[in-house]
Amino acid sequence: MEYPSKLIENAVNEIAKLPGIGKKTALRLALHLIKEKESTTYALAQALNDLRSKIKYCSKCYNISDEEVCNICSSSRRDQSLICVVEDSKDVLAIENTAQYNGLYHVLGGIISPIEGIGPSELNIEQLISRVKSSEDLKEVILALSPTMEGDTTAFYLTKKLSEFDIKITSIARGIPIGGELEYTDEITLGRSILSRIDYHKE
Amino acid sequence: MEYPSKLIENAVNEIAKLPGIGKKTALRLALHLIKEKESTTYALAQALNDLRSKIKYCSKCYNISDEEVCNICSSSRRDQSLICVVEDSKDVLAIENTAQYNGLYHVLGGIISPIEGIGPSELNIEQLISRVKSSEDLKEVILALSPTMEGDTTAFYLTKKLSEFDIKITSIARGIPIGGELEYTDEITLGRSILSRIDYHKE
Repeated sequence: MEYPSKLIENAVNEIAKLPGIGKKTALRLALHLIKEKESTTYALAQALNDLRSKIKYCSKCYNISDEEVCNICSSSRRDQSLICVVEDSKDVLAIENTAQYNGLYHVLGGIISPIEGIGPSELNIEQLISRVKSSEDLKEVILALSPTMEGDTTAFYLTKKLSEFDIKITSIARGIPIGGELEYTDEITLGRSILSRIDYHKE
Repeated sequence: MEYPSKLIENAVNEIAKLPGIGKKTALRLALHLIKEKESTTYALAQALNDLRSKIKYCSKCYNISDEEVCNICSSSRRDQSLICVVEDSKDVLAIENTAQYNGLYHVLGGIISPIEGIGPSELNIEQLISRVKSSEDLKEVILALSPTMEGDTTAFYLTKKLSEFDIKITSIARGIPIGGELEYTDEITLGRSILSRIDYHKE
């Protein structure tokens, strides 16, 4: 497509680098900004610059934070005996939204993926180990990783690394999603859900 | 939703002001930018700032342009006897993409809408009149406005204003879209398409 202006073309190219936004949507957004007040665009650009230049990570759990230690880590109301290990900040938000968890988190900042060249040393795994080592109240580490090959690899690696400590290591449950129908569930999920069936008397 | 950082919250709020982008998508985009190189965000912010502060409009047709007079208006290959009147720059791009039109354009910069308080004086209508008045080669003005009430009002107003000049005034054809099926076409479009039927011998 030929753009009427280099400024438009440049803006479209930059906007279209965002995930899930193609050139058509980018053009629509650029033309929208031109029509709006100048301050709208400036506020957006400023917010993005600030976000990228000032963002900090909690020194304990490596979640995004405005302070040296994040709200969750510094809260006295959170259960200090639980650490939930997740891939990134998005997962913390997702779990917080369930309102079912009251422990602490540890954000790995990624997942072990040999294909993408991400090994254990690129992630906050050493930090997790030393956190487990120094924590007196800790009783359980919950691995909340995606049920993909990379997630399983990371979980396996972490389980091995953490096995020397006297703590419980658990994983979030895999199974049929609530509201899901048996006949439409893929066979691996269904198979796993039979193997790791729950004893009603135990619950 | 509670965000882990004010910077994130601020960025999400600004991004979510864009049309078609909700808070969830905005959050996804913000978290994506944090993971990418800093230069990605800075280039995006710079492109948006430049777009808004440096954008210019062609002094003849009021389309977006980097120059005083846009590529189309200054091209000797375009047919100077045709002016196609459109609502905004998006429509110019859409018509250019068809590669079926080789005349000039005139961008109104909006459409007459009493509900939104946009009257003829807010649009580039006077400029169109004086352009028609001063143009020697002009033979036809094509109105390419949306078939909405506002579009029809604007077309009606323009037709009245332009009737004093010795030029043809036409509108883009309304009818069944190519590939559209008769039975699924709304009755107004179908009705209009019968009233303004095309004589095969004349074509």
